[in-house]
Amino acid sequence: MSHAKANPGEPPTFTMRPIGSVRSPYADVSQVPRGPGTKHEAEGVLEIAPEFEAGLADIEGFSHLYVLWVFDRADPASLVGTPPTDDRPHGVFATRSPARPNAIGLTVVRLLGREGRRLRVHGVDMLDGTPILDIKPYLSSVPEADLRRGWMAEAERRRAGRKP
Amino acid sequence: MSHAKANPGEPPTFTMRPIGSVRSPYADVSQVPRGPGTKHEAEGVLEIAPEFEAGLADIEGFSHLYVLWVFDRADPASLVGTPPTDDRPHGVFATRSPARPNAIGLTVVRLLGREGRRLRVHGVDMLDGTPILDIKPYLSSVPEADLRRGWMAEAERRRAGRKP
Repeated sequence: MSHAKANPGEPPTFTMRPIGSVRSPYADVSQVPRGPGTKHEAEGVLEIAPEFEAGLADIEGFSHLYVLWVFDRADPASLVGTPPTDDRPHGVFATRSPARPNAIGLTVVRLLGREGRRLRVHGVDMLDGTPILDIKPYLSSVPEADLRRGWMAEAERRRAGRKP
Repeated sequence: MSHAKANPGEPPTFTMRPIGSVRSPYADVSQVPRGPGTKHEAEGVLEIAPEFEAGLADIEGFSHLYVLWVFDRADPASLVGTPPTDDRPHGVFATRSPARPNAIGLTVVRLLGREGRRLRVHGVDMLDGTPILDIKPYLSSVPEADLRRGWMAEAERRRAGRKP
């Protein structure tokens, strides 16, 4: 990562360089399952560049990982939009929309195995070739009973009410 | 975000611009609780820049948020290091170390309230003034029973065994 000093009055910028890329069964956005109740069951590989392989030491012991990646084929950012899970618009920071001011994706995957600098994982929702920025161990969860899911829960209730 | 086309053979880079910054009680790294069993109980504010406020619409309904931010005062990246929770070195992608190739931090916070473009949150572990890159709704958790925490669990067992 490099860090550009800002001109007076302007915020600084941060330049990120991928550490690797995703091998996924999805070549095109239309193939990625989305919409209400989607579960991501696809397997894929996180292929880390040789110069970063040393950073994977001991990662095998974790069952789940956070993957931070770039929506490199997303539309330009839009602050408000209607997601596939609803028929009403919401602010982009209250959605998982790819069209974000900083187009960073976040996916929790299950680690199936490691072969050198390749991590075989379950739960990919990225396109094939997606640049990876970072991998972190998943350490703890918010208990489900403590979660409120705002407009998503409301949209689910509306859909359920509409069913015959 | 801007996307620089790569020279042949070189990976592309992605330039991120903060959407706001964190107000936190921590002015210095030494004040942030860390080490074994740390819980982050501090309250803070996510202050979003006026030009991004529209993106917060409907965020109030979510109990928990992911905050993606920049370790803007971290040491240069180091692929292997010894974290405060252990006395043995581990690969950076198997730790939460700030000294990462792309110095992006990830924190789950509880949303206490919103006043305009200010989100009052519980659970901050960032320094005051930390640049925010993105905010996403926290939608679901991995059940605790399914989690394995590799070297972290081993280090906890070793510490427990050492106790008088």
